[in-house]
Amino acid sequence: MSLANQRVTIVGLGLMGGSLAAALHPHCASLTGFDNDPEARSAADKAGWFSSVAQDLSGALQDADLLLLAVPVRAILGILDRIGADLPMPAVVMDLGSTKAEAVAAMNALPLQVDAIGGHPMCGKEVSGISAADPNLYHGCNFVLCPLERTRPETLQMAHELVSLLQARPLIMDPQEHDNLVALTSHLPYLLASTLVQTAASEGAGRPVWDLAASGFKDTSRVAASSLPMMIDILLTNRAPILKALCASQAILQDLAVAVENGDEAQLASLLDPPRRIRAALFTGNHTVEEDL
Amino acid sequence: MSLANQRVTIVGLGLMGGSLAAALHPHCASLTGFDNDPEARSAADKAGWFSSVAQDLSGALQDADLLLLAVPVRAILGILDRIGADLPMPAVVMDLGSTKAEAVAAMNALPLQVDAIGGHPMCGKEVSGISAADPNLYHGCNFVLCPLERTRPETLQMAHELVSLLQARPLIMDPQEHDNLVALTSHLPYLLASTLVQTAASEGAGRPVWDLAASGFKDTSRVAASSLPMMIDILLTNRAPILKALCASQAILQDLAVAVENGDEAQLASLLDPPRRIRAALFTGNHTVEEDL
Repeated sequence: MSLANQRVTIVGLGLMGGSLAAALHPHCASLTGFDNDPEARSAADKAGWFSSVAQDLSGALQDADLLLLAVPVRAILGILDRIGADLPMPAVVMDLGSTKAEAVAAMNALPLQVDAIGGHPMCGKEVSGISAADPNLYHGCNFVLCPLERTRPETLQMAHELVSLLQARPLIMDPQEHDNLVALTSHLPYLLASTLVQTAASEGAGRPVWDLAASGFKDTSRVAASSLPMMIDILLTNRAPILKALCASQAILQDLAVAVENGDEAQLASLLDPPRRIRAALFTGNHTVEEDL
Repeated sequence: MSLANQRVTIVGLGLMGGSLAAALHPHCASLTGFDNDPEARSAADKAGWFSSVAQDLSGALQDADLLLLAVPVRAILGILDRIGADLPMPAVVMDLGSTKAEAVAAMNALPLQVDAIGGHPMCGKEVSGISAADPNLYHGCNFVLCPLERTRPETLQMAHELVSLLQARPLIMDPQEHDNLVALTSHLPYLLASTLVQTAASEGAGRPVWDLAASGFKDTSRVAASSLPMMIDILLTNRAPILKALCASQAILQDLAVAVENGDEAQLASLLDPPRRIRAALFTGNHTVEEDL
């Protein structure tokens, strides 16, 4: 199996699905798109990346050799629940959902003639929609692949080919481990950013608080503007790891509050210097900063 | 009084003082620099912005018509405490510290022949040092001015001239109100960013957590790498407003944790949609987003 021979269908024509189409369309046999939103379908039609844009999910599934699901996680679960009947067999399904344990469990329940693999490209923007689609969105990002025990080698190979074509880096990972780690690196940042904005809005109500919001506030709060349906799906399909991350954060914030209240300079330094050193070393190509401490 | 006639001294040759020197040096009668750190003095000498770089504080103060203090807040307090004797009179002192209530209170205790005004440019970077100095650092930022009751009109006018020369926007504000608001827009983001990094490091220890840290984590955590001496000074001179901000944040995080634990979709939406709407409208030139809600 090679992508060049595959009739590919992308369900979900938002930022991720649109960007995927923009990068993938020259490299597969045909490309069909579908989205529940008529406006997204119309924009996809105009973009010129698709051989056809289907009017319903069944139409999108027929003739698909490779089905790529680029919708929020609970929509992925809904589609996986009902595609057994509609999908021609053999076929391959890959999802791009932001949490992986539940999606991979649902894939395990698919008929055996439908092969499947979970995926999660670690990129995105705080904007959404196919109008923001960018064929370079995936360049240089880590692309998590979660093969099932039953995933065939040729399916894993095709997934690698897709990741390579997007100029992303493949990262094979257990789905639960993925979910535990993105709770820390993606879902917790979202909740902290949202908390920051809400705190400033509530406590600063009626005062010129936004006049004093500079680049630090801007960056720290950016992801609070993320798509709500996407984030709520994530939060509801990764509850236990997120609760663990929140609980650990709350304990750290409480330690910081006590140190501020006591004016305890030594304690503040001991709490704040390790994360300062870690963050200063991150995103510099050195991924083993923990060992430096 | 006009800057063109003023012999200016900048104490503190880090990012802020260096950037100030880079922008200011063509526009004043002379420019003297001083820093406790010999390496910073040496770098300042080489930068070519200063008429002279003094070897001690007393040398930096003699002949200064306008003294600009660009050191961490507690160093500002220390200098204000002892310059009455060294500074030629009349003179004007302006500080650029990140918290204003304590500095302005210390200015009120200066001899009457030394006029004074508090300042805080709302800009910065997570890097520090004169090597990162940039004459454009202040462009377009809000520059808070906190005049004392005793501040003379000509001093306030010169402060405005300085802000204008830096292409920043002056914002006259009460020092305690400034401190209350930056607790929300600057100090809380720092503590949340630091908490995020520490949580990910502790909970992800020994696992490939940083491989899953993408642009969302990068931006949300950026300010955790800020200079520790600067941040500790800020935290210790703005304790009550910061505690209030932390307390409000902890309550919001707890509400979010309960909603996640209960899988309460409606409650999650009601907690997360208002900050999403506020953040989406911020940094677009619209400063009255609260009214939209």
